[in-house]
Amino acid sequence: MKKDLKNVSMAVIRRLPKYHRRLKELMEKDVTRISSKELSAMIGFTASQIRQDLNCFGGFGQQGYGYDVAELYSEISRILGLTQHYNTVIIGAGNLGQAIANYSNFEKRGFHVLALFEKNPRLIGLKIRDIPVIDIDDLEEFAEDKEIEIGVICTNSENAQDVADKLVKLPVKAIWNFAPVDIDLPEHIIQENVHLSDSLYVISYLLKMQNEEMEES
Amino acid sequence: MKKDLKNVSMAVIRRLPKYHRRLKELMEKDVTRISSKELSAMIGFTASQIRQDLNCFGGFGQQGYGYDVAELYSEISRILGLTQHYNTVIIGAGNLGQAIANYSNFEKRGFHVLALFEKNPRLIGLKIRDIPVIDIDDLEEFAEDKEIEIGVICTNSENAQDVADKLVKLPVKAIWNFAPVDIDLPEHIIQENVHLSDSLYVISYLLKMQNEEMEES
Repeated sequence: MKKDLKNVSMAVIRRLPKYHRRLKELMEKDVTRISSKELSAMIGFTASQIRQDLNCFGGFGQQGYGYDVAELYSEISRILGLTQHYNTVIIGAGNLGQAIANYSNFEKRGFHVLALFEKNPRLIGLKIRDIPVIDIDDLEEFAEDKEIEIGVICTNSENAQDVADKLVKLPVKAIWNFAPVDIDLPEHIIQENVHLSDSLYVISYLLKMQNEEMEES
Repeated sequence: MKKDLKNVSMAVIRRLPKYHRRLKELMEKDVTRISSKELSAMIGFTASQIRQDLNCFGGFGQQGYGYDVAELYSEISRILGLTQHYNTVIIGAGNLGQAIANYSNFEKRGFHVLALFEKNPRLIGLKIRDIPVIDIDDLEEFAEDKEIEIGVICTNSENAQDVADKLVKLPVKAIWNFAPVDIDLPEHIIQENVHLSDSLYVISYLLKMQNEEMEES
């Protein structure tokens, strides 16, 4: 039932991690099967959206039975590539870089952080869990005999492009960028930008709306 | 031209911060006006989507002229509530909490971080920029004479619900949650969860697809 995944839209892809998360929660609660309607109530997408999304990857559910939670979870893990292993480096060992290196969950999903790189001499030589902080000038040499697939940028905006250029030269295949700036990259490099402010601004919008409603009533 | 904003969908709201970010970039490049088509090329939404989105808030563009960049930027700032001021506390002064307290950009947008709260005695008493790290047991007393609107949860998953309950009692109006767990909150409390893994899993998916394509060719 394997379908051609090249035509699956990014909107669908971006919803997959949410299914993955909810299914894991269900497994932890020993739920073994779930209908698209129940999943809809949990996740906030319509049941028809859920059926449509999952149909992109071949049908998983069974009419009248729903989805087998463990099976769907493992299928989505596989579709997301979470059963694979990715060598990862983090550039910038400040608070954010250290916080990400500390997420042991990422390690469990196959994102193996080999090292953090840093230019601040006070941080070079530290260990975050067991991960060394290495001089950024040694990045190229370090990467020589390793196939590094993902570079995480945790520097400030000013250094982000420079760091990205270095990562592209290694070469990495994907960049996960936390600097609040868009980076110019060759087209074949996968780029994911995390803009924390986007989520904060949604809070701000909702707060403003709530405050206005209270003033009106 | 003020429209009733209560019917604007969350999908539109979630796109607004992206417009805001792009318009700021345009202003920094001294671009004074832009068509929905040009904006579409920058931002990756279709021109018709952009016109539709912005029409939810009253028409801004002018046929044949496009959008006045500075005007649209300031309108979207206002719609997002970024012209207001929000008292904010961060719970958890570990790496992530410190990283967020260090984002001076949030301060500029009106999110005024009054303090970080922490139970680890080695962190209590520190200052992040000028922001004090205070004993979590003193949260209630601290909040007594301040109107705190936003609580940011930067603890681990195990403590997140407990911390959320404390924040609800203060009371805060919104919770920005970075712990990788969903929190039970009263309905009137605004909840934004940041799941960093969602973005990482998208990278993983795209990497897997790219690797498979290379194997095929």
